[in-house]
Amino acid sequence: MQHFCYITFIQGADINISKLGDCNGLDVVIGSFCIYLAIKKSKTAGVGWVWVKKSNLYGVSGWYPMKTIKESFVGISMTNTSPLMAPTRAKEVALSTNPIAVGVPAGDNHFLLDMATTAVALGKIEVQRRKDEDIPEGWAQNVEGVSTTGPEKACCFMPLGGAKWNSGYKGYALASVVDILTGVMAGANYSTKIRKWNSLGCNEQADLGQMFVAINPNCFDPDFETNMCDLNNRLRNSKPVFTECSLIYCTFASTTTKRMPMLDLSRKF
Amino acid sequence: MQHFCYITFIQGADINISKLGDCNGLDVVIGSFCIYLAIKKSKTAGVGWVWVKKSNLYGVSGWYPMKTIKESFVGISMTNTSPLMAPTRAKEVALSTNPIAVGVPAGDNHFLLDMATTAVALGKIEVQRRKDEDIPEGWAQNVEGVSTTGPEKACCFMPLGGAKWNSGYKGYALASVVDILTGVMAGANYSTKIRKWNSLGCNEQADLGQMFVAINPNCFDPDFETNMCDLNNRLRNSKPVFTECSLIYCTFASTTTKRMPMLDLSRKF
Repeated sequence: MQHFCYITFIQGADINISKLGDCNGLDVVIGSFCIYLAIKKSKTAGVGWVWVKKSNLYGVSGWYPMKTIKESFVGISMTNTSPLMAPTRAKEVALSTNPIAVGVPAGDNHFLLDMATTAVALGKIEVQRRKDEDIPEGWAQNVEGVSTTGPEKACCFMPLGGAKWNSGYKGYALASVVDILTGVMAGANYSTKIRKWNSLGCNEQADLGQMFVAINPNCFDPDFETNMCDLNNRLRNSKPVFTECSLIYCTFASTTTKRMPMLDLSRKF
Repeated sequence: MQHFCYITFIQGADINISKLGDCNGLDVVIGSFCIYLAIKKSKTAGVGWVWVKKSNLYGVSGWYPMKTIKESFVGISMTNTSPLMAPTRAKEVALSTNPIAVGVPAGDNHFLLDMATTAVALGKIEVQRRKDEDIPEGWAQNVEGVSTTGPEKACCFMPLGGAKWNSGYKGYALASVVDILTGVMAGANYSTKIRKWNSLGCNEQADLGQMFVAINPNCFDPDFETNMCDLNNRLRNSKPVFTECSLIYCTFASTTTKRMPMLDLSRKF
């Protein structure tokens, strides 16, 4: 992998869409360039949309929409990566955790979503393994393709929703959409074309596809941020089931000196 | 509700984004206009993005990306609507089923997703009620905000993923994203500002927000459809867990004379 690269515009930079290619560059360097390019384009065109191919894993997905929020723009970012998820009713992997990140400016308490389209990502299964505790049904499959509660037996992820009766096919479909909007759209690798984790093919290029969007919401409604704050409050002020623990809301702290609020998993679900 | 309306462009039609407003028109009439406008814009700009406010429920979400597929373009459509879903840990509704529809051209066997961001939509609960059978955990809540297996006790939907331990907060977050990208972005109603089903306020305008996107994938990769067919095949050819029933895949028939494939709910999950 080259740590520095020359980025070639293969789609005109004078319109609102761009595609960068043939970089094989360091993840976050390419990603940063792309999100700032999307922001720049959205300042004139209302929406800026940038795809990149031949990229690598780009770190924390939510980092990119956080950059658009700083400019009071809405941001969307997605990437594909090495297969880890089994499609509904399949016993082998064909898609990855394929994350979706969305950031929306809202006063001093913005909306930030950064989620895998699998039921959970690897860390949560690892936590259960180290605590020597079971995982819930619907997080992972064993080698036979059957949902398992044993973290040691988990060999691939299930999609968001888990098994079919809980609409896991929707998580599988969302992961497919991410693969299409990133890998296929950018002309990069996708699905099982991407090298697997821990494979012997470590000299293969990842050639991931990534998508970065910035939208200027003030083009459409000058009251956008006021209404976003109002939406925040409507969701936060829903009557809770448990008075002893707070509602969940996608958010992050108002200043960069504060950490993002952590989920306290020891509390009542 | 006016069945015919005059549509005013309040954002210039000479760039790739548009917003239509003050219609209060018949759902599918407005939606059709918007998706064709998005297609028209994508032909010159690569991406066409149209928002509409003061609209009404627009029928089958998947209908709109099916129009983009006919032009060999990728299509995305979303709408918000009256609150039916309780946020994770809340006992009252604050978001709707907020559907996401995505269509992608792929030879003669295209990709079509049309999904609610709730675990299931109303029809599936109604089927169980008529069959006098329980619903699975994670589909719906009772009046106390607790997951129920009794279809008669279901009073609001749970998000995709169900309860918190199965990542239901991701479905809740996705529904929030749809509400933001439709209602808040268009300057329409959102969340609990939208009139409730069966409320007495039947003379209130719905004022829903909707989003229509068309993307010309050939701008980026001339092999797009070939690669989409390849992705289809990779997902379809995953090794199945159950040999007696087929894998699930988002798709629709190649000709309009064929019905979309139906899910056979009597078969093994």
